[in-house]
Formats: sequence, C-alpha cells, structure tokens
Amino acid sequence: MGVIDVGSFALGQWVGPGESATTVVSAIHGEAVARIGGAALDFAAMRDFARNRGGAALREMGFHDRARMLKALALYLNERKEDLYRLSRHTGATLTDSKIDIDGGIATMQVFAAKGRREMPDGQVYIDGDVEGLSRNGTFVGQHVAVPLRGVAVHINAFNFPVWGMLEKLAPALLAGMPAIVKPASATAYLTEACFRLMIESGLLPEGAVQLVAGSTGNLIDRLDCQDVVGFTGSAATAGMLRANPNLLANSVRFMAEQDSLNASLLGPDAAPGSPDFDGFVKEVVREITTKAGQKCTAIRRILVPQGQVDAVIDAVTARLANTVMGDPDVEGVRMGALVSKAQRDDVLEKAAAIGSEARRVCGDPQSLKPVGEGTERGAFLPPMVFHCADPDGASAVHSVEAFGPVSTVMGYRDIAHGCALMNRGGGSLVASVFTSDPDVARRAVGECAAWHGRLYFNNAASMAEATGHGAPMPHMVHGGPGRAGGGEELGGIRGVLHYMQRTAVQGSPDIVTAVTGRYVPGAAQIEATAHPFSRKFGELAIGETLHAGPRTITLEDIEHFAHFTGDTFYAHMDEAAAKANPFFPGRVAHGYLLLSFAAGLFVQSDPGPVLANTGLDGLQFMKPVSPGDAISVALTVKRKTRRTDTYGEVRWHVALANQDGEPVAAYELHTMNLY
Amino acid sequence: MGVIDVGSFALGQWVGPGESATTVVSAIHGEAVARIGGAALDFAAMRDFARNRGGAALREMGFHDRARMLKALALYLNERKEDLYRLSRHTGATLTDSKIDIDGGIATMQVFAAKGRREMPDGQVYIDGDVEGLSRNGTFVGQHVAVPLRGVAVHINAFNFPVWGMLEKLAPALLAGMPAIVKPASATAYLTEACFRLMIESGLLPEGAVQLVAGSTGNLIDRLDCQDVVGFTGSAATAGMLRANPNLLANSVRFMAEQDSLNASLLGPDAAPGSPDFDGFVKEVVREITTKAGQKCTAIRRILVPQGQVDAVIDAVTARLANTVMGDPDVEGVRMGALVSKAQRDDVLEKAAAIGSEARRVCGDPQSLKPVGEGTERGAFLPPMVFHCADPDGASAVHSVEAFGPVSTVMGYRDIAHGCALMNRGGGSLVASVFTSDPDVARRAVGECAAWHGRLYFNNAASMAEATGHGAPMPHMVHGGPGRAGGGEELGGIRGVLHYMQRTAVQGSPDIVTAVTGRYVPGAAQIEATAHPFSRKFGELAIGETLHAGPRTITLEDIEHFAHFTGDTFYAHMDEAAAKANPFFPGRVAHGYLLLSFAAGLFVQSDPGPVLANTGLDGLQFMKPVSPGDAISVALTVKRKTRRTDTYGEVRWHVALANQDGEPVAAYELHTMNLY
Repeated sequence: MGVIDVGSFALGQWVGPGESATTVVSAIHGEAVARIGGAALDFAAMRDFARNRGGAALREMGFHDRARMLKALALYLNERKEDLYRLSRHTGATLTDSKIDIDGGIATMQVFAAKGRREMPDGQVYIDGDVEGLSRNGTFVGQHVAVPLRGVAVHINAFNFPVWGMLEKLAPALLAGMPAIVKPASATAYLTEACFRLMIESGLLPEGAVQLVAGSTGNLIDRLDCQDVVGFTGSAATAGMLRANPNLLANSVRFMAEQDSLNASLLGPDAAPGSPDFDGFVKEVVREITTKAGQKCTAIRRILVPQGQVDAVIDAVTARLANTVMGDPDVEGVRMGALVSKAQRDDVLEKAAAIGSEARRVCGDPQSLKPVGEGTERGAFLPPMVFHCADPDGASAVHSVEAFGPVSTVMGYRDIAHGCALMNRGGGSLVASVFTSDPDVARRAVGECAAWHGRLYFNNAASMAEATGHGAPMPHMVHGGPGRAGGGEELGGIRGVLHYMQRTAVQGSPDIVTAVTGRYVPGAAQIEATAHPFSRKFGELAIGETLHAGPRTITLEDIEHFAHFTGDTFYAHMDEAAAKANPFFPGRVAHGYLLLSFAAGLFVQSDPGPVLANTGLDGLQFMKPVSPGDAISVALTVKRKTRRTDTYGEVRWHVALANQDGEPVAAYELHTMNLY
Repeated sequence: MGVIDVGSFALGQWVGPGESATTVVSAIHGEAVARIGGAALDFAAMRDFARNRGGAALREMGFHDRARMLKALALYLNERKEDLYRLSRHTGATLTDSKIDIDGGIATMQVFAAKGRREMPDGQVYIDGDVEGLSRNGTFVGQHVAVPLRGVAVHINAFNFPVWGMLEKLAPALLAGMPAIVKPASATAYLTEACFRLMIESGLLPEGAVQLVAGSTGNLIDRLDCQDVVGFTGSAATAGMLRANPNLLANSVRFMAEQDSLNASLLGPDAAPGSPDFDGFVKEVVREITTKAGQKCTAIRRILVPQGQVDAVIDAVTARLANTVMGDPDVEGVRMGALVSKAQRDDVLEKAAAIGSEARRVCGDPQSLKPVGEGTERGAFLPPMVFHCADPDGASAVHSVEAFGPVSTVMGYRDIAHGCALMNRGGGSLVASVFTSDPDVARRAVGECAAWHGRLYFNNAASMAEATGHGAPMPHMVHGGPGRAGGGEELGGIRGVLHYMQRTAVQGSPDIVTAVTGRYVPGAAQIEATAHPFSRKFGELAIGETLHAGPRTITLEDIEHFAHFTGDTFYAHMDEAAAKANPFFPGRVAHGYLLLSFAAGLFVQSDPGPVLANTGLDGLQFMKPVSPGDAISVALTVKRKTRRTDTYGEVRWHVALANQDGEPVAAYELHTMNLY
C-alpha cells in the first residue's frame, strides 16, 4: 500500500493535502500511512454551500425520504466494509475493534433509518407531543413542532472511532434535514476519508449534504450562527477552548460536547466470587480495558468492588489479562492491538504515573512489553495496566485523571452508599455500570447516582447473554453525560435528531394547526364524506374527511346479550343496585367494548376495498357512561396518513362516539392499513 | 406607605439591606419606595443549604407530592394577591398589567401542579419515553429516566415581571425536586420579596427549598457545578457576561437564557382592511405596545404588513393609540402606565433614536407627553411610539435594536416569502405572530420561519375570542428562542421540568428496569395471583401481579354471531375467499373487538369489589390474526399504579392475548380505577 493523500471534500470537489501536510504512521509498525493537512479551504464558501445547496436539497425531502436514503447508504457501506477493515488495522485496531467502529457505525445509521420511518411523520414537520388545549371552547390550541435548522452541522470527531464517530453524528443530522461538515482527527483521518469517499461514490446523498475537512477547521467556527450546530467529541481541553469561542457564545450557537469521563463499574454487594454476576463483571472489565487498547471514552476507568473482594477481583482480572495476547492484529490469536500513536502512548504513561502516585500498579509493566508480530517494536503498544487504590476517599487523581488507554483502577467500597458516592466522584460521566441481581441495589443506584451519569448499565446472569456492553453507546439510548463528560447528549433515538432541529410552539385554531402538521386536530373543519371512506384509496382520503354514522339505540337486551355472549358479567352491567352504588355509574351501563363493537358496526363497510385491516387502536377514553335507552352515533375522521410499503399505508382515524344529546361518550384513534 | 427594606432570605433567615443599600423610587411619582442591597450573604453556605437541606427534603417527596405542594401554594398566594396589586402599582403597572404578572404567575404554578399529577409518575423517577428493545429475546432492554439534579437552581430574573418571573421558574424547578435561589432585579425586587414572604409564611415549602438574594449574587456563580442550573432572563449584555463565566464553562453548568428579542407580527396577505383578521391584528399590536408600557420580552417590535396596506395599518394603529389614556393607574380610565424607571426611559429614548435613523416616527412625541394624575410629571412615562421603515431590506437597527418600551416599527412586505425573510431578520426571536385565515400562509410561515422562532402564534377570526395573546407565554408551551433570544427554553409543560433533571439511559434486564421505574416491563418476572386481582385493593396489588385466564376457543359461529349482533360484517370475517385474497389474513378471522370482549369475559370478576371502572385503553396492537378454531388465553398483569383521589387510584394493566401455540395475537394497556 502506498502513502494515502487524505483529501478534503469541499464545494463538491476533492482537494488534496497542501505543502505543509504532515505524515501519519501506522500504529503497528511505524511506517508512513498517510499525508494530511495544509489544503487551502474557503470555509465561508463551504458553510454557504452546505446551507444553500445541501440544506435546501435535504429539506425538500421528508423524514421518511431521508430515512430511506440512510438505509440505502448503510447497505452500500456494508457491502464495502472489507476495504475499511484493511485500513483500520493501521490505527492499531484488531478486527474485533474494527467491527465495533465500522459495523457499529453502519448499524447506528440503520437504526436511525428504521426509527425515522417508524417514529417520525411522513412529512417535513416533526410533531412533538400532544395537542395542548389552551381555551375553554377549543377554538385555540397549541402544538409543538420541530423543523430542521437552516445552517450546517460541524462535526469534530475523535481519533478513536474514525467511522462510527462520523456516522453516529451524521445519521441524526441528515435525518433531521441538516447538512454537515465533518472534521476527523488527523491520526486516523485516512480511514474516515475512505468511508466518506464511499458515501460520495454511492451517489445517494444530495450535493452539499456532506463535506469533509482533513486538517484544520481554520476560521469555520467563527463563522457560525444560531442556525448552525457544533458537535464535538474529544479532550476536555479542546472542548473548553471551543466552548469559550466568542462567536459561539455571542450567537448562542448550539454546542454539544462529549469529552473526558472517568467511568466506573461497580460489583454489587450480592455478587460473590464464583457467581455468574462476579464472572460477568470480571469479563466485562477486562473487555473494556483491552478493546481498542482502552481508547474508548466509555471504557471502565474505575473498578469499584466490595472491600472484602478487592483481592479476589484483582486476582481474577489480572489472571484474565495475562491470557490476552497483544501485538500485530494480523497475527493469529492476537486479542489486543496498539494505541493510535506513540504520542498517545506517552500521554497515557504520563497519566498512569499520576494515578500511580495514589495507587499501586498490580499488573502491566510497560518496560517488559513483548507484542507479537514482526516490526511491532516500532508500534505504539502498551500492556493493560491495573492499579489498586487503597484510599479512594482521600485520592483525587484516580477520580479525575483520564488515562486514555488500557488503564483502570480497583477500589474497595464499604457499603452501597459509599460505592455510589465513589461512582459520583468522577464529577459527571458517560456511563456507570452495576453488576447486581438485587433490584434494591439497582433502585438505590438510580436514586443516588443517576444525576451524575448519562447512562446506567445494569447487568447480571439474566441479561448477560444479550447485554450490549458497558462501553457500547446504543443508537437507541442517549450518549453523553454531565460535568466532566461535557454536558452534551447525542443519539437516544429521535432525541438525537432533535438536536439538529428547532422546537417551536405553534399556537392557533384547530384548522391552522391541522394544516401545519398534517394531523387532524379535533375542532378543525370536517369534510363530509361523499363516498364511504372505506371505499376510497389511501391517496384519495383527505385529512379531515369524516363519515357520520348512527344512531343506534343500546337496549338492556343488548347489554345482557353481550354479557352472556362474552362472559363479561361485571356487576356494573348486570346489577342495577350495585351499579348505582358505584361512584362512576348512574345504574346499569353498557360495556365499553360493546360501544366499540357497535361503533365498528356502524362505520364499517363490508365489501372488499382499500381498507385491508384494523391493526390497532390508541388513546381510548371512556368519557361518559351509556345507559340502556341511550342512542350512540359515531364520527370517523381521517386524522393522519403514513406511507408504509410499496402498496399500502397506515391511516389513523379519529373516532368520536356521542350519545343522543351530543355528549361525547368515548374517543379513540383507530389504525388501519389502506391500499394506495 | 413607608419605605420598604427589601430583605434577603438566606439559610432560613431574613437578612435586611446593608449600609450600602440603594433607594428605589416609584415609577409613577418618583417618591422613595424601597431600599435594597448591601447585605453580607455567605453564598457558599446558601448553596450548601439549598443542596443539603432543601434538595434533600424535596427529593424525599415524589412528583405528585410536590405537585400538590405547588397547588396549595398557588391557592395561598391567590387569596392574598390584593396586597401584591397595591405594591405593583409603584412599578408603573396598571391593574391589568399587575394581573398579567401576579395572576399569570399563580396560574402558571397551577398548570404545573396539574400537569405534574397528570403527566408525571406517582413516584420519584420520571419515565421518559417507551422501553427500547435492545436484544432479540428481550432479556436486555433500555429505558430513559430522569431524576432531579442534586444542586441548586439559581434564578436571575428581569425587572418587568417581578412575580411571574419568579413563579414561572420556581414551579418547574420545585416540581422537578430542585431547590432554588431567586435573584430578582433590584428595580422591582420589593414586589418579588412581598410574594416570596407569602410563600415562606405559608409554611408549605420545606426549609431550604427557596432562598432570596436582594442585591448582588456576589461569587455565587463561581461556586456552581454540573448539578446546578442557572436560569437567566434579562439583557443580552448580562447574559453574555454570565455565559462566558469561566466556572460555568469549565464545569458544563447548565445555563438557560432568555434575552433580547425583536419579535414580529405579520398581517397575512389575505387580511384586508375591515376584515376581522385586520381588526384583530391592529388590536393585538396596540395591546402589545401599551401593556406593561411595552416592557415585555415578547412585545411586538416589528409590524410587518403587505406593502399596499402600510398606510391603512398606520392609520388604524395610531387612531387606536390616540385613545389610550396614560398616567397614574389609580386614575379612572388609565390604560397605560409608566416605565419602571427614568433610567429605563432614557435607555428606550436612546434606542428609539437609533431606530429613528432608519425609520420615520408616525406617532408618539416624547416632548409633548401629558400623563394624567397628580405628580406624574415626576414619573417615568413615555408615549407609545410607532415608526415606519420604508426600506426594511436595507435597514439594520429596526431588526436588531430592542427598545424595551412602547416602541414598534411598521414595515411593508412584497409577498409572503419577503415577509417571512423579514421576520427572520431578527436573528432569532421568542415569538412571531401571523394573522391569517389561509392555511397555506400558515404552512408557508412554519416552513420558512419556524427555525428562527421559539413560538409561532397564529390568530384569525376563528380563534380570536379565545386566543391567549401574542405576548403571553403559556406554561404549556415552550418559551425561549434561538440566537438573539438567547438559545434557551423554559416552560413547555413537563419539558420545562426536565431542564432541572438529568436524563439517564438505564439499561438492564426487564426485572431491573421494572424495579427502577415501578412500571412493569414485559419479560419481567410475573407474580402469580393467589386471589383474583379484581378482588384486591389498590394498595394490595403488586407490580407484576398476574392473572392467567382462558383458553377459550373461537368458533366460526362466534364470529358470525358477533358480526350480525354488532353489524360489523367486514368481509375478512364473513367471506373466506375474499379474506384469503387479503395480504393480512389466512382466511376468515375473528374481529379484533371480539377478541377484546372475550378477553374481558375471561379476566373480569363480576362481583362488586375494588375495581370501579374501565376508563380506557392504550397502545392496542393486533399481532396475528385469530382463525376459527383457535383458542385464546389472556394474561392480565399489574403494570403501574397512580393515586388519583382520596379514595381511588388508577391501575394500568398489561394485557397479553396468545393463541393455543403461545403466539401473541394482541397486547394493550388497560386502565381501571381501583379503591384504596
């Protein structure tokens, strides 16, 4: 393999490195891998290109269009990931590490694609929450919506996950409808660039949707405003510099940081040596120390165990680590790779020395390291280093110095309150984990620790086979943490998409809110159906189109008949005196399900037509009891439409049942699948 | 009335002003009203008192307990508001202005009390969203929760709403479970202090839940960390200073600002002079200029009208303003009061002059002002000033200089695209309004403007009688805006409460997640019911307690009988060939409501007992069709319990229907009311 010239992608063009480019070497053997930096980029033009070209094209699409685009992109990358694995090895990664990065990134994109179609509207305006009634007669209501910001998302990524880091930020931004400028860390930018090239080659993204800056971002940050977003992953020092940028502060530019974190894992007081929870804990701790050679912002830095089990845990962890073969990932049996660079290795050694001033090293001597494989003496290897801190209350470095490598410290705790207090000594973390089968320990940990941690991961024998890992940020769950961890939040399903959107409170009449959201609001004008709505295709149905049916009188015989047929002989339907004694009922009343069934009988059209099936129902409320002799009518209104497959889509109907006096007795949302 | 010594309330004690206190004068007549400042307060001790005393006591309570506390507090204040009205007059407020501040603040607290009980769990852990499936077999799941932050909320309020400003921030913080330190603006702190005294006197709040700083906050901000929150309302200059505070930046302290905003109101192209929409627009514009003498962060600063209607709007607005009597609010007929102080008046005149460099004043001469009432020549009065800017595209001050008084500028727009572009020239605002009856105009405005505005307020003839006002932040809707408006967000119902809480992603087995949230997660252990759950009182039912019932075989006769009885003769139930042709069905199938009805027949116990009524149902999904000959069984599991009244509470049940092969055919959440 020749030396890669890492390109930037600006204004739709690739731009190679400039004269001042620097050389990046392989983490395994030290040979030159890539040249990066020094390109002359016009950052103001890039920002405008993103806003005016990429943003405009993305906003033309709806959420579902963009979700389909992400799905296609993920599939495209998935078919070409072998090339990425080959490059990834030079970052020091084993194949397992590479899969976490590359397959993990692709899977994240897939989850956002799926959630976008399942949980976002088939349109351009996101509907956030329910309609808020703001007036007595319902002529004025509120509805929160969200729309894509009109600027550009600037993504500044860390070196440790060159692919996942890019894709986990891109997926929610693109789904939101916002273009992005990606700035990878130089040490591993050649891998990010290779993945980025695939995305461009796919032709799946509109022009301007993504741009790449290999090297410095120059004055880009100084040119952003309230329609832009900066997403940062990296060191607290760099985050601090960016956060204090006068332009970001003056314009209230959104800044999300995910930075240092002294994550802890706690062995519950109930998990004795030899138990599955104990063994699972040891396994997870070792995995977190060795995966990516410990270069994970979510890695376990602090190992909290009951005081009586400190020795047992140290023995078990060091025994397991002793079996971990380190070296060239291409050599059979190697389980742990190198750090990304010698500079990183030196930094870790320095931080480990600080930790060593408060804790005794119980395994991992950097002097006597022998990585397997030819030429690895020129690589950036470090052994797993475990420390034991005997006085965690008096210590401070073990709770505050992040050695970003295979370094972790064991500490004993007295009781669960002490264990929780030690967890919180990290001053805000991305994730803390607890190995326990005791629900009380879990409840206690949430009560005492949740405020300090973005994620609390519980594991035990019941979940071990399927648990996703202490260190793995799942696209479904938020990633980020308070305080030292940066105070940011990413992922978390649609929550992560909303970081790229403006939430706006819309107030107006039901007609206006219906027009804006494409979802029928009760009180809005109803379009009287001329043909039966069940005879009309998905595309023909208009929001607000309404069928009125009924009335049908409910007799006492109906109630008795239904009771005996179904077996539901609840006293409120059968016994006048007992029903009267109930605070909810004036006497015997009709079954709720009898009302639903009769309502369906009133509005269903029997013949085959576009309606394929009733798939569900939501938000059913019984508002007023129906007594024998009451007559119910039903109004069936098209509330919302969502395309689902090539041949049919989902229609949600607002169904309102009223009695002979026009009083509402029940309301619900009915779901059907309808042919196009 | 004597001169009030405005006290601070620190560590549970009142502390009077110090030697360096300054005097505050009445906005109406200029006489001394209060002395404030100079108290020696120990801010570190106040922070610790809040965290350790107030926070601990609040966290002991659940959301519903705190909601009840807020409700009682609101009632207490409501009975004593006449005293506050009397003081409020000195701030320059008319009685109408005072009611917006005082009644508005109390109503906001009431809405949070109501929403807390309706929308938050009856417990200490907030459940944020649905369970996320993270594993194939369901042994490992995710659930977002939120818990109160462990620090203190520091509320720095503006002078214009001394009561609302305090209560609208306190209500969500206290509901979240977080204590607060309130810092009112000095000019009107005597009114805030009077309301605060009532709260303390009520005895309804735990010690340490609230403290008051009359005067400077000293070094308080430098002592906060990631468990604290700063909420700020005021000028962009002060916000900018706070935002750049090194301690806040270094510790990722949450900072929410609501600052300058050049709010616009747009008259739709469809609203001709003489139409109700036109008249409503003029009325609203005038109200926003005169209410609180224009000292509202949400006031209309920019009046955007179709170019052809500039003159008509100016004529209508100035005619209406000419009838507005200004002066001492105690004089009969006065509709507009004074600015808060002469300093504020001077500031407004300076800003108005800047606007005047780009726009012509069409009404309101500060020189020829004659407020009614004795001694008002010593007050801080200003007339409503309306400008007309003929070149809004070329102008900049009209879009960027906030004259915080009765000042607004009329501008003409060419078409709706131009109008939207002008709205966005404010660079981020709290609210923009559009007067239109045309749904297309509304849709267009949301598409083109929502990203720049925290709230979009639509009004027209249909909503006018009940519309809540362009300038009124409703507790249900978010208040805050991007960019110039500060990038913050308050209120918005429970969204506003979450600003005082940490969202944490909890991952674990269904048993662990059930224990943590108090809500049954499918897959968690079920407790086999020994007695029928319908015979057990609310307090006796355990989460996870399950009744298994069935099987019952569904016959073709059942289906036909049900079809003819209800009238639901949909072909999928009646016609084998047609049903088979449907992609969802293998042939004739049972009605969904037949399944629900039979399920109820299987699990209902008929005799009077603790179950009072079935009140509703949620999330019904039909997963697999049921054919004649299939036998269904049902599992009814206690999912969640919520106390509602003194005598009964709501029980939500997870109901799962399976066929003879154990395959799920339907699932839903059933709601009942059960006696304690």
